[in-house]
Amino acid sequence: MKKTLTQKILEHHLVSGTCIPGREISIRIDQTLTQDATGTMAYLQFESMHVPRVKTELSVSYVDHNTVQIGFENADDHRYLQSVAEKFGLYFSRAGNGICHQVHLERFGRPGKTLIGSDSHTPTGGALGMIAIGAGGLDVALAMAGEPFYLTCPRVINIHLEGHLQPWVSAKDIILKVLDLFGTKGNVGSVFEYGGPGVETLSVPERATITNMGAECGVTTSIFPSDAMTLRFLKAQQREEDWLEFAADHGAQYDRVVEIDLSKLEPLTAMPHSPGNIARIRDCEPVPIRQVCLGSCTNSSYKDLATAAKILKGTVAHPDVSFIIAPGSKQVLENLARDGYLADLLAAGARLMENACGFCIGNSQSPPSGSASLRTSNRNFFGRSGTRDAQVYLASPESAAAAVLTGHLTDPRDLNLPYPDISLPERFHVDDRLIIEPMDPESAAGAPIYRGPNIGPPPANEPLPDSLDGIVTLKVGDHITTDHIIPAGERMKYRSNIPKYAEYLFEIVDHTFFRRAMQIKESGHSNIIVAGTSYGQGSSREHAAICPMYVGVKAILAKSFERIHAANLINFGILPLTFLDEEDYDRLADGDRLLFPDIRSSLVDGDRVRLLNDTGGISMEVAFELTNRQKKILLAGGVLNRF
Amino acid sequence: MKKTLTQKILEHHLVSGTCIPGREISIRIDQTLTQDATGTMAYLQFESMHVPRVKTELSVSYVDHNTVQIGFENADDHRYLQSVAEKFGLYFSRAGNGICHQVHLERFGRPGKTLIGSDSHTPTGGALGMIAIGAGGLDVALAMAGEPFYLTCPRVINIHLEGHLQPWVSAKDIILKVLDLFGTKGNVGSVFEYGGPGVETLSVPERATITNMGAECGVTTSIFPSDAMTLRFLKAQQREEDWLEFAADHGAQYDRVVEIDLSKLEPLTAMPHSPGNIARIRDCEPVPIRQVCLGSCTNSSYKDLATAAKILKGTVAHPDVSFIIAPGSKQVLENLARDGYLADLLAAGARLMENACGFCIGNSQSPPSGSASLRTSNRNFFGRSGTRDAQVYLASPESAAAAVLTGHLTDPRDLNLPYPDISLPERFHVDDRLIIEPMDPESAAGAPIYRGPNIGPPPANEPLPDSLDGIVTLKVGDHITTDHIIPAGERMKYRSNIPKYAEYLFEIVDHTFFRRAMQIKESGHSNIIVAGTSYGQGSSREHAAICPMYVGVKAILAKSFERIHAANLINFGILPLTFLDEEDYDRLADGDRLLFPDIRSSLVDGDRVRLLNDTGGISMEVAFELTNRQKKILLAGGVLNRF
Repeated sequence: MKKTLTQKILEHHLVSGTCIPGREISIRIDQTLTQDATGTMAYLQFESMHVPRVKTELSVSYVDHNTVQIGFENADDHRYLQSVAEKFGLYFSRAGNGICHQVHLERFGRPGKTLIGSDSHTPTGGALGMIAIGAGGLDVALAMAGEPFYLTCPRVINIHLEGHLQPWVSAKDIILKVLDLFGTKGNVGSVFEYGGPGVETLSVPERATITNMGAECGVTTSIFPSDAMTLRFLKAQQREEDWLEFAADHGAQYDRVVEIDLSKLEPLTAMPHSPGNIARIRDCEPVPIRQVCLGSCTNSSYKDLATAAKILKGTVAHPDVSFIIAPGSKQVLENLARDGYLADLLAAGARLMENACGFCIGNSQSPPSGSASLRTSNRNFFGRSGTRDAQVYLASPESAAAAVLTGHLTDPRDLNLPYPDISLPERFHVDDRLIIEPMDPESAAGAPIYRGPNIGPPPANEPLPDSLDGIVTLKVGDHITTDHIIPAGERMKYRSNIPKYAEYLFEIVDHTFFRRAMQIKESGHSNIIVAGTSYGQGSSREHAAICPMYVGVKAILAKSFERIHAANLINFGILPLTFLDEEDYDRLADGDRLLFPDIRSSLVDGDRVRLLNDTGGISMEVAFELTNRQKKILLAGGVLNRF
Repeated sequence: MKKTLTQKILEHHLVSGTCIPGREISIRIDQTLTQDATGTMAYLQFESMHVPRVKTELSVSYVDHNTVQIGFENADDHRYLQSVAEKFGLYFSRAGNGICHQVHLERFGRPGKTLIGSDSHTPTGGALGMIAIGAGGLDVALAMAGEPFYLTCPRVINIHLEGHLQPWVSAKDIILKVLDLFGTKGNVGSVFEYGGPGVETLSVPERATITNMGAECGVTTSIFPSDAMTLRFLKAQQREEDWLEFAADHGAQYDRVVEIDLSKLEPLTAMPHSPGNIARIRDCEPVPIRQVCLGSCTNSSYKDLATAAKILKGTVAHPDVSFIIAPGSKQVLENLARDGYLADLLAAGARLMENACGFCIGNSQSPPSGSASLRTSNRNFFGRSGTRDAQVYLASPESAAAAVLTGHLTDPRDLNLPYPDISLPERFHVDDRLIIEPMDPESAAGAPIYRGPNIGPPPANEPLPDSLDGIVTLKVGDHITTDHIIPAGERMKYRSNIPKYAEYLFEIVDHTFFRRAMQIKESGHSNIIVAGTSYGQGSSREHAAICPMYVGVKAILAKSFERIHAANLINFGILPLTFLDEEDYDRLADGDRLLFPDIRSSLVDGDRVRLLNDTGGISMEVAFELTNRQKKILLAGGVLNRF
């Protein structure tokens, strides 16, 4: 049977299940990556698995998110990450070395391999012909411990590229076109597999812009074949030995085929406030642009910045434009400096930021209020820039340079300049001295781990007891989001300190929750939460399960659960129970004592459990909806207890 | 009579008074500078003076402090500053162009001129043979309006430099030696005037390191003669036409002469937590250094960074050291990039930050907790780095580079490397395109001023009425600091928004103060504060007077006042009144109604005023201690009302 590239790699790595779209499969993971904002908890979890050394072929810990370092917490996290990496056999990419996805592409990614990373833009690696998927920190920790990664076997959609890009149109415009065609919703469980003759015209960094921002469509990942262009990139990175040819079989069957003629594309932009809100720049009003940010994991390659440098050489940024550049890596910056492009950008008034995520994650360079900012990054969600009433447009480096010159949203073709055709260098200047290698296993055994005062003990849980004797600590209504459960924002600096972070559980719902839950836990009872429909909607943050686990929540009784949050609850050993009769919700109240006399055996044997409301003197049945794998996790008291 | 250089410049600029140390004089100001953290309020004040264009020879508005831009407020401030500069005849140095003191030295400072700046390190300019003094924002606003600057005529101390520096010893070690000799206290009202044959061996940027950090001694300013070295620097800056020879007369009389033999200096450091806590590095324990920060207005010149680059070329930062560099200006960065030094620094693992104040003001790059950070900046006060338990050492770029290599506090002579003798380039690559010139007066007249929502209306006051009818809104004890009056920290982002900032008045003393004061004001009464001794000690921030003025505080009755705060109260039209009999303090209580039936005439005629405590049915006399100039300001309701 003719196979897609996706199928080939998945089947080669298959551990369990059958590669049929929609079915659960598990695959072997060759590589992992983490960044510092999510990595600290992932490594705390990995530590609690008591595995002496990572079992992947390659694992890398990057520092690229919290590099502004206001207060001691971030610097302490970086030291923790470094000491853990050295001890457990990971490579550590120091702050200043660059954005994880850019550096991974340059130095570590390999065709045909599997990669998971605790960052939603991990699919960037698909540019090298690998299956690269974003995942939660615990999934990454499990992969490092040698466990397979569970996912729904994806549908594969072929995006067939014809022709070649016209001057002033670039890779960013391709992915903006894909977003225009597919939107940001309805693509869950799919992989975008690129093919067709247009693929040969795109260098690996251009392909990376496309696979990176494919994440905005909600797909599992995106992938390009590994071909002569891939070899050329790996040669320029002085690692041609990592190359293997990888492509879909001719005639492979796809779930859907969509064709894009590159020759017909024009400069596009994603207008506020969605990456899927696409328009031709030529059709837009010439909005005044007060800030242009060139960088982020989407568009911070050598070519991206060199192209802008050539456009801007000899000119200076419009007086109303704050022009920010953040190269994707030290390699990019050094090569730009050596080739003179950096000097051109500085002369043009660029404000040079550290090689890091920077402006893209809203931790710096918030634009003026009410203004428009044009950025080459991948997300323009409402408020993400740090300025609530800012209007953020996403576009290519070419369109960014045009706005730098004119001070308004401008189709770069209207500059009437010769198009600066920058090609990939034959050889990049490569210097890996900011990547620290792991210790040899003998030295590692006795090596200390550095833990600053904000890095708490890793959370622990116990196996599910035979029976539960619990108190309803909190009864909430419908549509409780993870923001209700555990706040983000400024509280997020406590993400490596569960005992501290847990103090803010349900802060905006009932600020007495933490104190009361700890009292109930100390009295030997379990905490139980009663909820309405769609409990746990919103972000996928694991802390909405980890922190309740920490305070002794053993079960949530709800009318319904949001899918990802239910999975998180299971991973951390909290029972997600649903009412068989929704009216039973009304028969439970704050403070009720609930007894589950045979919880463990009910879980082993079936899909229902009886509970007694000791306060009301009534009983009812509630349901589990669990696979056998999930039952085993719950019986153990969470994934981490299986180690 | 033989004159000191200081005397010559002061007398040439004298407007009132006699140049006798200790007497109040006023001088004409040729140049002003502001930075963005203090500048916004200074320009709001300038606006309220209704002067159409600055009356100085040159005024420059720099953006260098709040360039991380978390939230919209900073970017809005920058836009406000730019629009005001263009309209009122100032030069505007855009974010990314560099630190005010470094850029002013490069492009604007001139021998023989007077400069005041709303930044305490304005004395940097003394390296060019000018009188350069740090001042409050209102003083700078007044100077821009053409008013003279009032100061106490200083004592002049001659620091006589003999010999020349040995390899690995540099300008920073000279000023650390000066701090060792003079300490950080007891030098108020003095000027350090450098002379002797050693001066000829020091380039202008080296002199600037010395004059900059002289501020830590508490002197009015520091100054070097303008000589052949000055000419060489100005030539390299392509502005030799700005050069004039300026020196003290041979045989001029100084209040004190202190000699330093440069040949005998060794690498020094200021240990935690004071710039005056000086030791020879060789005498120190080899403390592990976790962070090295090379930059700040003290040591961020071309030579400083090029020296470090040559030391570090071909090596990489110790794995435990986070190595931060922040060039002082775009000119420095561009010249480093052109000459290859930037690539060397990057290859050595430097994390390149924006050309700005950055780490030095604690708004980024906080070190890990409990760690030691070695910095080339000028202040290592407790907690200033953003990490409460960090230990900050101050040292030269040479000593900084040594710590980058070894990971601990190291005398750079112990590296056993050849000393990289970097000389000043003959010609810097100069590009002023990030400096926006003022509009011509005709266009300026109609030009709009941009005000973001955080930029409130400039505060206004009314002339002192004939009588006061007030309520004691708050009675406090002894030693109330400006931190008690108006908090800094995260509240400081409201410094351009007085109505908002005023909400935090006395926040930590009595959080009801603001609400009550506004009610009293709206009821037509004045607010009066009763205090014990040393009211207003601590920082010199003007907002501890501006915000009380805004809520209608008309008088403070205290046992005694801190000098600078009393001057600020006068500037904003609040009466500082002292008890003749300290026991009268006990005869006043919160909520008492106080009547001053003839306040205006009492102020005109004498030094006492009678008040009736209408609540207690008693009366008492309280005192003014005011010059005639200060009385006029109070009668007008503050300096700004004289316009």
